Amino acid sequence: MSKNKHIYIYSPSSAVRDKAAFKRGVARLKALGHEVEIDEAALKSHQRFAGDDATRLAAIGRAAASRADVALISRGGYGLTRILDALPYKAIAKAVERGTEFVGLSDYTALQCAALVKTGTVTWSGPALGEDFGAEGGADDIMEACFDDLLHGQGEGTGWRLPARDAEVGEKLRSIHGATLWGGNLCVLTALLGTPYFPQVDKGMLFLEDVNEHPYRVERMLDQLRHAGVLARQKAIVLGQFTGQKKVPHDRGFGMHAVVDRLRTLLKVPVLTGLPFGHVPTKVLLPVGAKVELAASGRDVFMVWGHRHAHEGDHGHHH
Amino acid sequence: MSKNKHIYIYSPSSAVRDKAAFKRGVARLKALGHEVEIDEAALKSHQRFAGDDATRLAAIGRAAASRADVALISRGGYGLTRILDALPYKAIAKAVERGTEFVGLSDYTALQCAALVKTGTVTWSGPALGEDFGAEGGADDIMEACFDDLLHGQGEGTGWRLPARDAEVGEKLRSIHGATLWGGNLCVLTALLGTPYFPQVDKGMLFLEDVNEHPYRVERMLDQLRHAGVLARQKAIVLGQFTGQKKVPHDRGFGMHAVVDRLRTLLKVPVLTGLPFGHVPTKVLLPVGAKVELAASGRDVFMVWGHRHAHEGDHGHHH
Repeated sequence: MSKNKHIYIYSPSSAVRDKAAFKRGVARLKALGHEVEIDEAALKSHQRFAGDDATRLAAIGRAAASRADVALISRGGYGLTRILDALPYKAIAKAVERGTEFVGLSDYTALQCAALVKTGTVTWSGPALGEDFGAEGGADDIMEACFDDLLHGQGEGTGWRLPARDAEVGEKLRSIHGATLWGGNLCVLTALLGTPYFPQVDKGMLFLEDVNEHPYRVERMLDQLRHAGVLARQKAIVLGQFTGQKKVPHDRGFGMHAVVDRLRTLLKVPVLTGLPFGHVPTKVLLPVGAKVELAASGRDVFMVWGHRHAHEGDHGHHH
Repeated sequence: MSKNKHIYIYSPSSAVRDKAAFKRGVARLKALGHEVEIDEAALKSHQRFAGDDATRLAAIGRAAASRADVALISRGGYGLTRILDALPYKAIAKAVERGTEFVGLSDYTALQCAALVKTGTVTWSGPALGEDFGAEGGADDIMEACFDDLLHGQGEGTGWRLPARDAEVGEKLRSIHGATLWGGNLCVLTALLGTPYFPQVDKGMLFLEDVNEHPYRVERMLDQLRHAGVLARQKAIVLGQFTGQKKVPHDRGFGMHAVVDRLRTLLKVPVLTGLPFGHVPTKVLLPVGAKVELAASGRDVFMVWGHRHAHEGDHGHHH
């Protein structure tokens, strides 16, 4: 069960339009026993953004200075790629060293990748306040259990079941050791390729998800990573949830299965699917930049990142 | 007026679904007095594609071997980024040396950029058969005049009028000399960033257009080019037509004007707009990879590429 933790809510990307979801999210975190601190600019609005660039940069700075247990984004959307050259990377790194975990997804992938490049800082791909904790039908149990694990330093990994059509991949896989986990939203990640903010991870484990991107666009992005040599350098590619795809008559059988099947013919690296992460309610939390192990037993896959702060002893800074 | 020329029609990207537009396009080229040769796979269909990858690669090879005056794509869509590592670059380069001009747009940007990287070959951003020559209301006069100029080696440049809000940019600009013209579809171009198929053009003139991309996505792509250092290395950025953008209430004033205005505050390089090129009927033809000059007089801009084949004397290979 959750003990009282300090959670800092801020808005680094798009403006919060769904105030009801925001309020539900705050109420849910409070109901779980947490102290919720809301950044002064969390509900600001400028064009599409949660305040202009300076406002959002200041908000990220306050989140880093908050000494909260978790700095949680209100929502994703768009805004972080604009300000990558001005993010307070050192302050974020110091905050993480002090014990603040940074959690978010989608547009947040840009901050996570850039922080990994600049300071090697580990951040978490996970929920956002509004869409996840403030979900209309209530927050997802598995997401909340994973979040609770993070808060109490007890989460040491995650597991999922491969889709039936991937059974053979699981059987061949056995295990992978000491791979750096990284990735996030495919669209945002590829929007960093060729820039100084794209992580140069060799022998890593790259996880990817996306929403509202047609399979041909997903394939084009995967091909960009492939042509750039990024995919072949990894120990595994792990595909999460690709949702909101609208098929059209022109597709004639071209869909995500075709994309994945072709990718597997072009890569020696194993391509796993079914990771419970993406723009879906049931999402696990994933430490971007941490070393992970992966093991498969039939269709069951386990990803383990062990005691992240074991070297600090007893997860001291979590308490 | 047009004299009889040999035009080769092939399909390197998406399957042709609008057969009526295809037929109208062929009829229009014939009515202009041209001999039209249709590739045997031009109307093939596999999933979304005009035949599988091997089929389309063979079609591109036949276009290069055709000894036609122009190799013209039937349509754009999607398909070339999949096969960049297998394109017949040398055959294309030899065909261009022999006098075949390669013309297309949209997905075709991938072939144009990759050909520029691999062999320095100049190709033309311009019309496609179906959407342009086969347009339901008839082909656009300006597009046809530019195409005719290309066929007869008489086109040495193009001009357009800057939008009123850009008058100041035109006044400051004066002239630019000896810049390599390159670019095309923004989405396809950025899908090459970080790969071996992205042209490393310094002091160039980069032109960009796109269709059905929200301004925030256009901005994210421009920022990718900016963060990669590509924009600052150019002598000018020339924006063509950005069409099919759907505004949403969430934008609150964020649109292409905001994107362009911000870009200008971030770059010393001049950013021109209004180039008549993109997914619009009235489009000029632009030589990707050629040296161009640019001059502005008030709001009137002239782009000149001179006698492309002057060193070969009298455009000899055109006859």
